[in-house]
Amino acid sequence: MALIVQKYGGTSVGDIERIKNVAQRAIRAKEAGNDVIVVVSAMAGETDKLINLAHELTPLPNVRELDVLISTGEQISVALVSMAIKSMGHEVKSYLGHQIPIQTDSAYGKARITHVKSDTILKDVKVGKIVVVAGFQGIDDKGNITTLGRGGSDTTAVAMAVALKADVCEIFTDVDGIYTTDPNVCEKARKLGKISYDEMLEMASLGAKVLQIRAVEFAKKYHVPIHVRASFNDNFGTLVCQEDEEMENVVVSGVTCDKNEAKITITKVPDKPGVAHRLFGAIANANIMVDMIIQNVSDEGLTDITFTVIKTDLSKATNIVGKMAREIGAKDINTDENIAKVSIVGTGMRSHSGVASAMFGALAKEGINIMMISTSEIKISCIIESKYTELAVRALHDAFQLDKKVFTKDDPISTP
Amino acid sequence: MALIVQKYGGTSVGDIERIKNVAQRAIRAKEAGNDVIVVVSAMAGETDKLINLAHELTPLPNVRELDVLISTGEQISVALVSMAIKSMGHEVKSYLGHQIPIQTDSAYGKARITHVKSDTILKDVKVGKIVVVAGFQGIDDKGNITTLGRGGSDTTAVAMAVALKADVCEIFTDVDGIYTTDPNVCEKARKLGKISYDEMLEMASLGAKVLQIRAVEFAKKYHVPIHVRASFNDNFGTLVCQEDEEMENVVVSGVTCDKNEAKITITKVPDKPGVAHRLFGAIANANIMVDMIIQNVSDEGLTDITFTVIKTDLSKATNIVGKMAREIGAKDINTDENIAKVSIVGTGMRSHSGVASAMFGALAKEGINIMMISTSEIKISCIIESKYTELAVRALHDAFQLDKKVFTKDDPISTP
Repeated sequence: MALIVQKYGGTSVGDIERIKNVAQRAIRAKEAGNDVIVVVSAMAGETDKLINLAHELTPLPNVRELDVLISTGEQISVALVSMAIKSMGHEVKSYLGHQIPIQTDSAYGKARITHVKSDTILKDVKVGKIVVVAGFQGIDDKGNITTLGRGGSDTTAVAMAVALKADVCEIFTDVDGIYTTDPNVCEKARKLGKISYDEMLEMASLGAKVLQIRAVEFAKKYHVPIHVRASFNDNFGTLVCQEDEEMENVVVSGVTCDKNEAKITITKVPDKPGVAHRLFGAIANANIMVDMIIQNVSDEGLTDITFTVIKTDLSKATNIVGKMAREIGAKDINTDENIAKVSIVGTGMRSHSGVASAMFGALAKEGINIMMISTSEIKISCIIESKYTELAVRALHDAFQLDKKVFTKDDPISTP
Repeated sequence: MALIVQKYGGTSVGDIERIKNVAQRAIRAKEAGNDVIVVVSAMAGETDKLINLAHELTPLPNVRELDVLISTGEQISVALVSMAIKSMGHEVKSYLGHQIPIQTDSAYGKARITHVKSDTILKDVKVGKIVVVAGFQGIDDKGNITTLGRGGSDTTAVAMAVALKADVCEIFTDVDGIYTTDPNVCEKARKLGKISYDEMLEMASLGAKVLQIRAVEFAKKYHVPIHVRASFNDNFGTLVCQEDEEMENVVVSGVTCDKNEAKITITKVPDKPGVAHRLFGAIANANIMVDMIIQNVSDEGLTDITFTVIKTDLSKATNIVGKMAREIGAKDINTDENIAKVSIVGTGMRSHSGVASAMFGALAKEGINIMMISTSEIKISCIIESKYTELAVRALHDAFQLDKKVFTKDDPISTP
């Protein structure tokens, strides 16, 4: 008998019929002899509807009240899922964030969980109840309602799994697992049976939006296995878990792409200590996330700095950079929105050389120019012209033979 | 400087524009130098929408989860009203039932308030904040969410007024006060400037659905004046308050009617001790509310018992009574749905004779037969054929000259 946390996203509870399916699925897991905790998101579209309502009222809704507003979405879902389970004859109890409580800091709209109390829920579980928990929401130490940000229900599910010492956290979604790349872009994409936390983190942050990054970080920290699987069938999906020996042999697990970034270049920046600090300090103060930063060696005391931001932050960033450019005596700034980031991710890269050159070669073979390069221990990202995105993904998927099977250290890298 | 509780109903917060009006109105009261606590209902139609969703899922939704579900309506309203106030430049803070807390018993769907904590809200009020409170919802001593039943936001408002020692509780609604009778039935209906708690209770329970009965009871118990007024203009409405000398002189304050009842007659009931107890005990056990009960003196040890119930309870009540009739050896049962109750209400009746006969006379003059009569200290109700309802209301309104001014002890009763 295992303790299972099941998380169902917005589409899985999108209408009354789907809610009944979720109830049946939870009951099935319960009747198979498990203890079951269900975490649910708001019904698909509900959160956006509420946010639009707030924006009809005012362009900048108060952040505390916005959390009071949007947390109702999950409250509606827990009530309906619980009613469905109850109407099917099973004992059940719903919990909102403040009833558990799921304690968070006070960062409205992007709160972080600090503590989850487990004893009340465990008591209900022990007497045979299915427990249904509202995802996405928590409460700060003053009793204010907080929300965890987009995809926050994943984090709720993992946090519950940690607090309750669950055997597995199942994330039910509208895809049946994690793929080597986006099947819409590359039809040879193959579902992975297993992926390490670190790879999943790179995949997630690079644009494969199946799991919230924070949920994966949390799972990694507390060694909770996450099983990403389809809510519409019973197939095994993808297990996100600790690295094992088999994984270490895999050089490249997946290819991802991200078209949401834009790049800004400041030309002829005086190469003096403190310049980068001032520039990126000003950007950080405006709450703009910077992804890649490239500064090459300087030429005659002048250098070019290029960095990428999320497209929606581009105009704000350009304003700040324009002002800074004058202050620090740089020559000019250029921006480019027609870019994409393609990346390869794999744990085995750590101990395997030649991966980067194989990647560059595969892109070159298709005539794709690389504008920027950034690497981490287990991923390599290239900024390219956005029109080549799909071509690049397919080329890399082929080059590392991701369609065939996992690519291991012993495989020859098939690049020109 | 006064402390004012303002309650806005569902139509007053029915859309974004109306929510802005509520915000402006609250700010206006604040800027006039008052401390302001706003209590809001769910946006019009929202609660019904949620209840329908639950019924789509199951005919008998679990009552605990139904309260979790429908309490989201008020949560949405407080968030939006607070955002609106904030966006207009005023400090504001929203409170949900569990954040205050508004402590209730555990009777889901019809919980009663047991205690309201006031210190946190008073602290906010003292530093100049407008406080926005979710109506209709509370929390029991185990932290479960409860709701107070239809119109429960009125009770929340009065309870807040009591806890905060408010000077007045303003109930903003879509009518501009309490009328001598329904203006849709009798065009001569006149708005009352003042009405006593007791009269209001009789009016409310008799079908003038402006205020929740429990709210009036609460206000009476703690001497909180309620000002019922229009949300669409600044006119003075009707003050519901303690009886004063002026009121005591008023014989009849209003005429009400109610078409929601049906009557059941059991004929030739053996007139033995305990029969009525068994009969009405069985009905009460089925949670059916009985309004009027008439049992006349018996004839040869047999008597007829007639009583009225809400129409929607008629078939359930008939089943129970049918079974009981056989058990107690009664002859037959008859039911009639085509009835209406017309009533006159007035504090002055207590010390004034001739009111009942004037009422019967006014009805007789129009050829309206009276089927049942019931009286309390300050009201007289007659059950008549429902087709005569409007005629009866107008006849009584005329007979007691309610269009002209308040009818006092010194006025002649103008009946035949």
